[in-house]
Amino acid sequence: HHEMRLQSFQPSLVTRSFRLRNEIVRVGLAETLCTYVMMVFGLGSVAQVVTGQGAFGHYISINLGFGLGVALGCHVGGKVSGAHMNAAVSFAMCVYGRLAWKMLPLYFLSQLLGSFLAAGSVYAVYYEAIHDYCGGNLTATGAKATAAIFATYPAPYLSLFGGFIDQVFGTAMLLLCLMALSDQKNKPAEAGSESTLVGLLVLLIGISLGSNSGYAINPTRDLGPRLFTAVAGWGLDVFRAGNGWWWVPVIAPMIGGVLGAGLYKLLVELHHPPRSENCAGPIKTLEETAQNTDTELRV
Amino acid sequence: HHEMRLQSFQPSLVTRSFRLRNEIVRVGLAETLCTYVMMVFGLGSVAQVVTGQGAFGHYISINLGFGLGVALGCHVGGKVSGAHMNAAVSFAMCVYGRLAWKMLPLYFLSQLLGSFLAAGSVYAVYYEAIHDYCGGNLTATGAKATAAIFATYPAPYLSLFGGFIDQVFGTAMLLLCLMALSDQKNKPAEAGSESTLVGLLVLLIGISLGSNSGYAINPTRDLGPRLFTAVAGWGLDVFRAGNGWWWVPVIAPMIGGVLGAGLYKLLVELHHPPRSENCAGPIKTLEETAQNTDTELRV
Amino acid sequence: HHEMRLQSFQPSLVTRSFRLRNEIVRVGLAETLCTYVMMVFGLGSVAQVVTGQGAFGHYISINLGFGLGVALGCHVGGKVSGAHMNAAVSFAMCVYGRLAWKMLPLYFLSQLLGSFLAAGSVYAVYYEAIHDYCGGNLTATGAKATAAIFATYPAPYLSLFGGFIDQVFGTAMLLLCLMALSDQKNKPAEAGSESTLVGLLVLLIGISLGSNSGYAINPTRDLGPRLFTAVAGWGLDVFRAGNGWWWVPVIAPMIGGVLGAGLYKLLVELHHPPRSENCAGPIKTLEETAQNTDTELRV
Amino acid sequence: HHEMRLQSFQPSLVTRSFRLRNEIVRVGLAETLCTYVMMVFGLGSVAQVVTGQGAFGHYISINLGFGLGVALGCHVGGKVSGAHMNAAVSFAMCVYGRLAWKMLPLYFLSQLLGSFLAAGSVYAVYYEAIHDYCGGNLTATGAKATAAIFATYPAPYLSLFGGFIDQVFGTAMLLLCLMALSDQKNKPAEAGSESTLVGLLVLLIGISLGSNSGYAINPTRDLGPRLFTAVAGWGLDVFRAGNGWWWVPVIAPMIGGVLGAGLYKLLVELHHPPRSENCAGPIKTLEETAQNTDTELRV
Repeated sequence: HHEMRLQSFQPSLVTRSFRLRNEIVRVGLAETLCTYVMMVFGLGSVAQVVTGQGAFGHYISINLGFGLGVALGCHVGGKVSGAHMNAAVSFAMCVYGRLAWKMLPLYFLSQLLGSFLAAGSVYAVYYEAIHDYCGGNLTATGAKATAAIFATYPAPYLSLFGGFIDQVFGTAMLLLCLMALSDQKNKPAEAGSESTLVGLLVLLIGISLGSNSGYAINPTRDLGPRLFTAVAGWGLDVFRAGNGWWWVPVIAPMIGGVLGAGLYKLLVELHHPPRSENCAGPIKTLEETAQNTDTELRV
Repeated sequence: HHEMRLQSFQPSLVTRSFRLRNEIVRVGLAETLCTYVMMVFGLGSVAQVVTGQGAFGHYISINLGFGLGVALGCHVGGKVSGAHMNAAVSFAMCVYGRLAWKMLPLYFLSQLLGSFLAAGSVYAVYYEAIHDYCGGNLTATGAKATAAIFATYPAPYLSLFGGFIDQVFGTAMLLLCLMALSDQKNKPAEAGSESTLVGLLVLLIGISLGSNSGYAINPTRDLGPRLFTAVAGWGLDVFRAGNGWWWVPVIAPMIGGVLGAGLYKLLVELHHPPRSENCAGPIKTLEETAQNTDTELRV
Repeated sequence: HHEMRLQSFQPSLVTRSFRLRNEIVRVGLAETLCTYVMMVFGLGSVAQVVTGQGAFGHYISINLGFGLGVALGCHVGGKVSGAHMNAAVSFAMCVYGRLAWKMLPLYFLSQLLGSFLAAGSVYAVYYEAIHDYCGGNLTATGAKATAAIFATYPAPYLSLFGGFIDQVFGTAMLLLCLMALSDQKNKPAEAGSESTLVGLLVLLIGISLGSNSGYAINPTRDLGPRLFTAVAGWGLDVFRAGNGWWWVPVIAPMIGGVLGAGLYKLLVELHHPPRSENCAGPIKTLEETAQNTDTELRV
Repeated sequence: HHEMRLQSFQPSLVTRSFRLRNEIVRVGLAETLCTYVMMVFGLGSVAQVVTGQGAFGHYISINLGFGLGVALGCHVGGKVSGAHMNAAVSFAMCVYGRLAWKMLPLYFLSQLLGSFLAAGSVYAVYYEAIHDYCGGNLTATGAKATAAIFATYPAPYLSLFGGFIDQVFGTAMLLLCLMALSDQKNKPAEAGSESTLVGLLVLLIGISLGSNSGYAINPTRDLGPRLFTAVAGWGLDVFRAGNGWWWVPVIAPMIGGVLGAGLYKLLVELHHPPRSENCAGPIKTLEETAQNTDTELRV
């Protein structure tokens, strides 16, 4: 018995490296698959709306496609990888100490791979639809452009600076709300409703912050499919279009995510009373909360 | 031990004033941030629909923008401020004893500030979109009016009297339902679903009571962004438009909220049996409720 | 002590009649108010879509208006009246022993009153919108007919026989599903999600069984507002239109509800095993259910 | 006592065959009824959109009709049959050991019968609407084709090979996500939200993978109504249309379902640690999950 316990607390270097490699495979596969699922549903909804020309859904279908896709991805990656599906989320988690920095490359690569494969799958499934729509002429710009099925491109009126602000802001709102939804001392999403609420959040960002540049708010979601289109027939125009737009949804969300999460921490999380008063018991109802506030302030 | 307990029940004036100031900062920051979040999503959805001219969502996107925005705001303000996000809600809470009157100015100011900042943020993010849409001519009326992205304006057929009724009624329905959703002796929203249900309620009001004047049903939601437009380039027309419409969504909701909450109390809450029979245990199913009603009435 | 217990089990006639009268007031007020709330949101959404002429929602907004209206009505009537809001539901509950027959008139009258008052409120709030839309000419038929904002009318192609089938079938589907959602030995709606699921069910019926005649599937929902329009200016045409359509949504749902609920009982509820095996513990997941089925059948 | 226990563990052949026959009736009736409910709502939404010509819903109404129809079907079949409602689901459950093979014919026949009867019911309810729409000329192809109300047909551009890929892929995504939603060692749907999440999954597939061929992703859903149309007046064209399309949604989903479920097992389920660490206690929040990952990997 004694030896066994020793071994379990002091694993040999071999055991540790084996467990780590196993863990990396385990987390990497789950993160790849959940990103793949989210992206198949998201990109599929764009493909359907674009090639359907109004007969198979409108802009709101795309919002639902990405929103519900995120919700289901949360169940696929689940407790194995945490289902970030977004490099800006993983990066912010590292900055605020919720993910080890050494895991970041694994998350980046898994998300990039999942997004790339999803783009390939959606292209395969919609191959005939896309070629029927554009007459076989795969372009990144123009009336029958199809590259925007896979990666985001800015509206004609948008400057690079305006687009940078747009992507910083959208991702800041995403992370700000994710922080609130997981703040155990405030009013977090209940067990069982996290995935749906995160999905509704992404739906909401698409509804309110989507028209400037297609709400990438996610470096890997945008770069993976853009790389796919570059090699699958659309060529290097996918990097040139929109004044070289491609780097904006890669860089800006990393900054925005950290800012948004930090803003929530600065304005709300830091001020939670240290005592356990506020986080005891189940979530209080509106009435109890108000009365509680009332009571405390009358002291 | 004895001294410690004494101190905790009889804090010195200094301690009390310190705790109060802390509490004010804490509640004010949370109420400001949750109102900001709700308004960014709400106003963002209007900006997108208006400047998108049909390509990026329709009227129902705006209903979803405000509805889901309220749901997420509930998680941001959560247990810290109760996430009223609406001066008519805070006022009704004071009238019915769920919030101390001395807290009301703090809630008003926080909500006004959050709404003002949200209007500024949405203007910044949609700056190029709005100027592209209206040709740089910021107006409160006319074919390319953009002031309605931020504050509400009445339909052409609506009189001030009709609009006043509209705002009293819409806010009455809001507070009536909020009272039901938080009535622990009836069938309240379960822990974990309050925010979603409140969001669906706001979505529903937009779907059914929105076309007369844009369902402000919230003084601070309307006044904050109107003030922003007044200083940001739209000028004093934002107060003159609609026969001087601006004061209606400020005053009428305060009255409507108190009436609606009172109606629920008068017709339902007052009649709950004093004994704990009705509120014991978990929520009963339709079947049990019906059988229960049946049994009691056969006595 | 002994006397008190006796009294509580053998209340005098006076006490019993007092409690009964109190209970009638209590249940009647709650049923009236929840029906009122459901109908204000439902009729309001029709008024908005009709007078908005496409700018403030489409047919699906009406489906959402009634669906979410039912969900919120469930919280208002809640445990007090059970929130039937529908004479066909109350009637079926009596037929299957879940409501005392002597309560039926109270439910009918409360639902009729709530629906009538809701029609009046919606007319008041949309008075200027409706008169602007139809030029002050209140009609039940024709291009600018507005009576259909309040009560249902059949499609031009629909015969009375076809409409009768339509209303029997729609209400049968409603009650069949309500029975399933409240069957404690099967997979009922969990505490806290009943109202939302019932709302989604009504939304679904509007999406799939609504175009023939406007899915009244509810005698009181249809008759109350029709009576209101008859006295408020539309005249007796509201009873003559559609070949005297008015009685179909009053009679057919009563039959359909009983048939639908009975069908569920006949095909599913009757066959539950008498032992408590199947209803023990929390709801099983898909996996457990399937394995369980598998195991039992391999015995 | 001893004899009773013996009997309960060693039932005679007669008792066993009786129980089995009972179980078959019980499961068969429930599976038939839940499939019927799902299909009435699904096909009803198509009938409404097609015959309504834009006035009673758009493509997204059909997505909602099938999605919410599946959610309600889950409550009808519930714990009795598991509410597969889809031969590809039942087949995959058998392949992966969650359903006894000998039950498969019962599920197939029940699902086929439920779908056939639902098609008949929808035709009866929409009889006048359909004949008014197509002028009494029931066809499977052409501008006023109505056979697509009941069964799926491919888009004009789609080859049989492309359609086969489409159906394999769509059903693979369905089963992959169903596996995740029921994986107790990952992040399964909580009790009470399974039906809604499965409904949202079907809604999502309609939004993102529906335009190529109408997302049958279900052999019995497609074959039952197709048989109905063949005998009800559309004739054998329903089998000839689309280059003899009919067999694709029968065969391809069977393959796709097994592949998708297998992919989830291969990439996620197989790698769960054998110890109970990962599945202990309630579902962890985003924060805890991330910290947990972080901690484990720092070992």
